[in-house]
Amino acid sequence: MISLGSDNHSGVHPQILTALNNINTGHAPSYGTDPTTVAAKKLFKKIFGEHSNSYFVFNGSAANVLCLKSLIKSHHAILCAGDAHLNVDECGAPEQHIGCKVIHVNTPDAKLTPEAIEKHLIRRGDQHYSQIKVVSLTLPTELGTMYSFAELEAIKATCKKYDLFLHIDGARFIYAPYVLQKSMQEICSGVDALSFGGTKNGMLFGEAVVLFGDHPEFKFIRKQTLQLPSKMRFLAAQFLELFGTDLHTDIARNGVELAKYLESKLLTVPELRITQKVQANSVFVEIPQKWVKPLREKFFFYIWNETTFEARLMLSFDSTKEHIDAFYDHLLTIKTQLRGEQHETRSHRDRQQQH
Amino acid sequence: MISLGSDNHSGVHPQILTALNNINTGHAPSYGTDPTTVAAKKLFKKIFGEHSNSYFVFNGSAANVLCLKSLIKSHHAILCAGDAHLNVDECGAPEQHIGCKVIHVNTPDAKLTPEAIEKHLIRRGDQHYSQIKVVSLTLPTELGTMYSFAELEAIKATCKKYDLFLHIDGARFIYAPYVLQKSMQEICSGVDALSFGGTKNGMLFGEAVVLFGDHPEFKFIRKQTLQLPSKMRFLAAQFLELFGTDLHTDIARNGVELAKYLESKLLTVPELRITQKVQANSVFVEIPQKWVKPLREKFFFYIWNETTFEARLMLSFDSTKEHIDAFYDHLLTIKTQLRGEQHETRSHRDRQQQH
Amino acid sequence: MISLGSDNHSGVHPQILTALNNINTGHAPSYGTDPTTVAAKKLFKKIFGEHSNSYFVFNGSAANVLCLKSLIKSHHAILCAGDAHLNVDECGAPEQHIGCKVIHVNTPDAKLTPEAIEKHLIRRGDQHYSQIKVVSLTLPTELGTMYSFAELEAIKATCKKYDLFLHIDGARFIYAPYVLQKSMQEICSGVDALSFGGTKNGMLFGEAVVLFGDHPEFKFIRKQTLQLPSKMRFLAAQFLELFGTDLHTDIARNGVELAKYLESKLLTVPELRITQKVQANSVFVEIPQKWVKPLREKFFFYIWNETTFEARLMLSFDSTKEHIDAFYDHLLTIKTQLRGEQHETRSHRDRQQQH
Amino acid sequence: MISLGSDNHSGVHPQILTALNNINTGHAPSYGTDPTTVAAKKLFKKIFGEHSNSYFVFNGSAANVLCLKSLIKSHHAILCAGDAHLNVDECGAPEQHIGCKVIHVNTPDAKLTPEAIEKHLIRRGDQHYSQIKVVSLTLPTELGTMYSFAELEAIKATCKKYDLFLHIDGARFIYAPYVLQKSMQEICSGVDALSFGGTKNGMLFGEAVVLFGDHPEFKFIRKQTLQLPSKMRFLAAQFLELFGTDLHTDIARNGVELAKYLESKLLTVPELRITQKVQANSVFVEIPQKWVKPLREKFFFYIWNETTFEARLMLSFDSTKEHIDAFYDHLLTIKTQLRGEQHETRSHRDRQQQH
Repeated sequence: MISLGSDNHSGVHPQILTALNNINTGHAPSYGTDPTTVAAKKLFKKIFGEHSNSYFVFNGSAANVLCLKSLIKSHHAILCAGDAHLNVDECGAPEQHIGCKVIHVNTPDAKLTPEAIEKHLIRRGDQHYSQIKVVSLTLPTELGTMYSFAELEAIKATCKKYDLFLHIDGARFIYAPYVLQKSMQEICSGVDALSFGGTKNGMLFGEAVVLFGDHPEFKFIRKQTLQLPSKMRFLAAQFLELFGTDLHTDIARNGVELAKYLESKLLTVPELRITQKVQANSVFVEIPQKWVKPLREKFFFYIWNETTFEARLMLSFDSTKEHIDAFYDHLLTIKTQLRGEQHETRSHRDRQQQH
Repeated sequence: MISLGSDNHSGVHPQILTALNNINTGHAPSYGTDPTTVAAKKLFKKIFGEHSNSYFVFNGSAANVLCLKSLIKSHHAILCAGDAHLNVDECGAPEQHIGCKVIHVNTPDAKLTPEAIEKHLIRRGDQHYSQIKVVSLTLPTELGTMYSFAELEAIKATCKKYDLFLHIDGARFIYAPYVLQKSMQEICSGVDALSFGGTKNGMLFGEAVVLFGDHPEFKFIRKQTLQLPSKMRFLAAQFLELFGTDLHTDIARNGVELAKYLESKLLTVPELRITQKVQANSVFVEIPQKWVKPLREKFFFYIWNETTFEARLMLSFDSTKEHIDAFYDHLLTIKTQLRGEQHETRSHRDRQQQH
Repeated sequence: MISLGSDNHSGVHPQILTALNNINTGHAPSYGTDPTTVAAKKLFKKIFGEHSNSYFVFNGSAANVLCLKSLIKSHHAILCAGDAHLNVDECGAPEQHIGCKVIHVNTPDAKLTPEAIEKHLIRRGDQHYSQIKVVSLTLPTELGTMYSFAELEAIKATCKKYDLFLHIDGARFIYAPYVLQKSMQEICSGVDALSFGGTKNGMLFGEAVVLFGDHPEFKFIRKQTLQLPSKMRFLAAQFLELFGTDLHTDIARNGVELAKYLESKLLTVPELRITQKVQANSVFVEIPQKWVKPLREKFFFYIWNETTFEARLMLSFDSTKEHIDAFYDHLLTIKTQLRGEQHETRSHRDRQQQH
Repeated sequence: MISLGSDNHSGVHPQILTALNNINTGHAPSYGTDPTTVAAKKLFKKIFGEHSNSYFVFNGSAANVLCLKSLIKSHHAILCAGDAHLNVDECGAPEQHIGCKVIHVNTPDAKLTPEAIEKHLIRRGDQHYSQIKVVSLTLPTELGTMYSFAELEAIKATCKKYDLFLHIDGARFIYAPYVLQKSMQEICSGVDALSFGGTKNGMLFGEAVVLFGDHPEFKFIRKQTLQLPSKMRFLAAQFLELFGTDLHTDIARNGVELAKYLESKLLTVPELRITQKVQANSVFVEIPQKWVKPLREKFFFYIWNETTFEARLMLSFDSTKEHIDAFYDHLLTIKTQLRGEQHETRSHRDRQQQH
């Protein structure tokens, strides 16, 4: 079955799997002192700057928690969008691991603004109140929207003004440099920590915690948080392939182009309503309730909003134009079919009413 | 370089890597609802019994913490051997994640006994004292020793008598059924939780938490502890290959046979002293201090005890007789070389003394 | 200075202080095995029923955290009103001690409803989402409002229907039986845990955790959470005095009657707006901004809402009609004075405008 | 009954209770901004130096945990004596609240030494191992022994050399300046945090966290750890009385003189063995097993070691020479009585043997 459910429904990009196969020779030290990991860390310094320090971990939830745990203490609070993964999809992991409060802002497009941040900076210095100390934004957001570079700069300025740390949840960060046409380093200038995604971008598993500045104690925190991979070279090799070549750009281009192509197709169907700007690799669209079930018989996707039947359609590194065309055709078939049924039903009803 | 450092210095067993390559087709649901994971969980029920429930996680530290977290609360204590990984190699993870105390027993062979357990069951019911509630033993131990089946049964009886849970840290559990000639289920009868190792036994990554009995809340605990892999099929496929075939037995046999072969070679060198029974895939041996550095120039291994120069030599799935022969030859060369130097030094000194 | 700031601005009720003086003779076992504590626990069984178990702790934040920690685990969530103390006034203590998420509902009167509870029961069973498992309501609320008995019963039914625990934050619980004209036991029927306040009701310090049902492990949790008082008899003696006599009813009557008297006086001043129903010992009132500063020169109170200048005026066991009359007179004086100044300013401005 | 069980079996020193009665007038701000608390904090600056910052909390367990939590993180370890309260009498509170490991050293007199500390500083920088970062010593120790000033200075030098923090658990700290004839400030020079006891020294409740250096975030940690007393003036008033007058010296003198007097009496009884140096307010003595039960019928005390029948006899602010004389007389009576019974038994046995 073709899935439009999530970019973690796809497997491993063939190029990355080849890299995994190639690295599987002989013995190497574990826990990150092997040459492949050393090379990958060097590559990350090149990408993010000499002042950055990158650490590989197993998954995105861990990257988020570890970034934030390295920045704040338990009496602090994290400010994020209501839709943020770390607010609603981590089963309370930030609260559990950091012991802190997560305060959220509900916004229509899952994007924070300087005004929203400022509005929540209340009771500073009041010992009875968790002190907001870090702003976490998702880039691109959970709704497939992208902060403009100017919007990012405004948030950075706000964080600086109020002495707040800035964290980016970048599970799908590869789309940002492609869409914004800025280097990763430009985007991250002024950022304190980045959760840098691999799994959703074609890797078998693996994310990176990128910390801007020195955190000599981080290695202990990672180990204690159960995120020190022993055969580290197999993470490093994937990152080297994904970011040491143009592969990340290729994947980003594919995701964005296909999302826009999907959007263009859906716009031709008047019963559908695109609900969010299409700026990364997903399309959010309201679908007539009756279409959902038959549609999902051939294509898997999630219903994001159970009351409006807003669906999230997500493209992956292995998504193709053919997938979208097939989805579109299936959708039109269902539309026709249901209209027919509706007519029948109506005719039937009409007949009944004639009695 | 050939490593005798750890069984996580080797890469992925070719058979397992092939399984990973084979599973990499098309889309599959994430987080464990895919068919491969369903099949692997079914296999685990077959291995450990219908009342068992298995959950895949990223690494061994996590398996340990999650097993224990599902059994006890923060006012309880874990009793384990002083050498246990969870006492000295988890950077305090049990304390951090469970909030409990870890109480250890120092024993010469890293094995617990009913007497040692009973001796520590003090102040039961005293609200000022952490209450020991789970016994954790390592099988095989950190010192390469193996509990006999009778010893295991005695500990199980002690745990039952005092209403204690029993946990097995089985990072290298595959050696237990091979050495004890008992099924995994026989060994685990009376056990409450098992950390079931994959990484050190030829997998790229992955361990299983095997819980005996129902723990409906476990899935939340795993997720919150950052151990829910998204592309789960890639873990499941490795487990299916390792335990759905004879591969685990083959690997265990190779490890044990080579360890015994290594032991037999070392026994021929009077300067060496084997310090522990060789019952799994490692040999602990005291080495003359002067030999250590030149030995490590060609073969990597860890010095377990910095004062006695006790070395841990560990075999892996990809270790061979040829590795051991080469190590042995290198050792003899060094011995001869150093004896020569010593002679020289002595001669030199003798000459000096003649003055 | 007279304070209308909080009922913890007053000292110790003389009757309670006498009890403290009386208990100060000779030696007694510590940590709760003394006869005074035994007597107080017996009294609590009489008040709350034989199935209840009461434990004395130092303060209200602790009572809240300990009640909740004895009911839920870290992957659960607490549902409470946005204004609830445990949401905004505990510096994130529930998150830190339980590791769980606190989810809040914003309501105009700080009261939860069955509808509000049901609306938040989403994603049940979804491992990515913190599972709401306990509802915590404040009685009376932070806004001085009181749930009716019928409203309480409806919430109890909702909790039962959805298998949720019910906790009452009763820092000022003494007002509930007096206002609702129900026994404490009637009010608590169907409740799982009650934070039972002493400090704000005339005690020097001390609160009780009242658990309905057996929690044999609670004593360990209390100790570990640093809430086991050593000279326990001095807590017990206060509770015996407060609840073994009519003192708690007298204090509740005084608080409610004075709050209503204060309300009646304020209603005569058209510039003021009472914002909440007066149902316990506080009055919430919007005050013209210019009056605030001079008013606070003689009477201390908190501004609850910095944008609307809504003040919280709170009565205590030692508040008197004379205090209120003095406050009212001071308020009228300020009103007159400011009107004069305003006239002057206006006249002055008028004169200026003549230029 | 007279208790020799613990110095928390006594009540409140009359002078302190008077201070409590005196402070109970009118309204005062809560949470520490009242004039009494301000005065007490000023007094503490005078005692401990301008660079010290003192915070009042409810009990000793909390003082310990808060001192340590303000110094270290979860991947650190605390090093203390095996007998230390924080190792065996806090129900795992340090592990729970800080998430760190507690590593203990078994010593005959509960005193740490530079050698013992150095010996445990292993695997520094190794990410798999909890890093010892703070040394906690108890002054006087749990065994009633006192570090000499030179011993303290040596430990301070060791901590400085290895970049370790130094914490003193001073639940009975008042005995240190009296015995060592040094000022509190001299004793604390080079110390980072002190748990400063009140409850065991005649207060109703209350301890102080004394931090040397600035910890601007401490107030949040205290609140979040549930240790912010609302009617703070009643803690401050007790401290003002205890340390603003000579009361603490008087209590210390009484405790030490009576302990030495008790020791001198016990030394006259050859069946008894004093096991520890008497240097504070307690005497540790091995008692013939048969004497224990009858002795405890009139005088309460704890058996410290259940196998050797070592008892801990502890003096309090309200202990008197008469108490000791009565205890001694009772002991002699029991001795005589049991000798008689023994004779009888022996005679009886002898008679039996004659048969």
